[in-house]
Amino acid sequence: MADVRTMAAPAGRRGTFISLEGIDGCGKSTQATLLADRLEAAGHEVVRLREPGGTAIGEKIRKILLDPQNGAMADECELLLYEASRAQLVREVIAPALARGAVVVCDRYLDSTYAYQAGGRGLDASLVSRCNELGSCGVLPDRTLVLDLGCEDALARATAGGADRLEQEGMRFQERVRAAYLRLAKAEPARVRVVDAVGSVEDVAGRVDAALRDVVAPCRCGDAGVAHE
Amino acid sequence: MADVRTMAAPAGRRGTFISLEGIDGCGKSTQATLLADRLEAAGHEVVRLREPGGTAIGEKIRKILLDPQNGAMADECELLLYEASRAQLVREVIAPALARGAVVVCDRYLDSTYAYQAGGRGLDASLVSRCNELGSCGVLPDRTLVLDLGCEDALARATAGGADRLEQEGMRFQERVRAAYLRLAKAEPARVRVVDAVGSVEDVAGRVDAALRDVVAPCRCGDAGVAHE
Repeated sequence: MADVRTMAAPAGRRGTFISLEGIDGCGKSTQATLLADRLEAAGHEVVRLREPGGTAIGEKIRKILLDPQNGAMADECELLLYEASRAQLVREVIAPALARGAVVVCDRYLDSTYAYQAGGRGLDASLVSRCNELGSCGVLPDRTLVLDLGCEDALARATAGGADRLEQEGMRFQERVRAAYLRLAKAEPARVRVVDAVGSVEDVAGRVDAALRDVVAPCRCGDAGVAHE
Repeated sequence: MADVRTMAAPAGRRGTFISLEGIDGCGKSTQATLLADRLEAAGHEVVRLREPGGTAIGEKIRKILLDPQNGAMADECELLLYEASRAQLVREVIAPALARGAVVVCDRYLDSTYAYQAGGRGLDASLVSRCNELGSCGVLPDRTLVLDLGCEDALARATAGGADRLEQEGMRFQERVRAAYLRLAKAEPARVRVVDAVGSVEDVAGRVDAALRDVVAPCRCGDAGVAHE
């Protein structure tokens, strides 16, 4: 049996866990890449991940979730698939990376499940929270950035490369997701921060750095790289 | 959105839900097929299913679960994948079949998750029960038959066609699974019955019928087919 097979809480945590969130097209994947580059240039070991996916098993699950042919997927099934992919990512990648002191930059994490399933689809919020507890194995980000953008701007960006199943669900859905993210930021202000995603990639990157300064410093390219204790 | 997308409890239930359980090699798949044939011959509409799987989405999940290459799967991931497949099966197939009065014969259902994950792998039993609530969408069988066979006999049957990942885990694992099934039968005697799986296929089929007589009658080939109220 592989040693990822344990239900005990992951041992030791010396690194920093950052997640980027937002509606489709908000620019978080671009910002996640740039942030990872800056952190590496500053001397950190950086593990860049995306959800759903990020492991061989998780990528297979991602394929099922994003396949437009699976449009008749029951809400509970979708929710449980996201959590399954997440649990694998936590046990196989995130917990070991944090244990050895790396900075983990994750493009979507458990707040996506809250925003999309509870906010977007209207699933019972306490049900979603219970599932999130299982899927995250209790591992929460040190800082979560919600890249906030008006839904029309975001949809235009998101569909430029062709719409997938989630993106086809349209504007009203995205508006419910956005509202759920903003509620999360109000409910958990120490962990979740809203970053204005309007403007150039460089402008937004500057706001990302500012919103991370107290958890991982410094993260601008060229600065000396020392992890925040 | 497809109409399987709802979190409400499935509406209406006129049919009968039977699940067959037991360790690998106990003969439940053979008995499920024969039972379905007898019920059909008796005039019932029968829906025969297997878990994990039973839907297009569930079969894709099944493939991930049973792939020997996925041996490093975290316990939580495995548990959540089984539940995702189950939720899809309940919403897409089982609940509609029960609503129209069919007899559902399911080769494995939520008791497998208890027996394999809590019994076999030693996951926390209350965690597994919480997951089972989510995955089953609250839909329990009217009768569950545990086909009980000594682990050596069962392993010999199961590995005759080549061992899959679960079967490779061996005898001690199977013994824990068997013990968990027997505990379930003690804990829920009205729903879960143990059927001795030693002997010829015909002998076991006779015991299966006897253990179902109060929930779906008659189910012997050639008898008149009237669903039990």
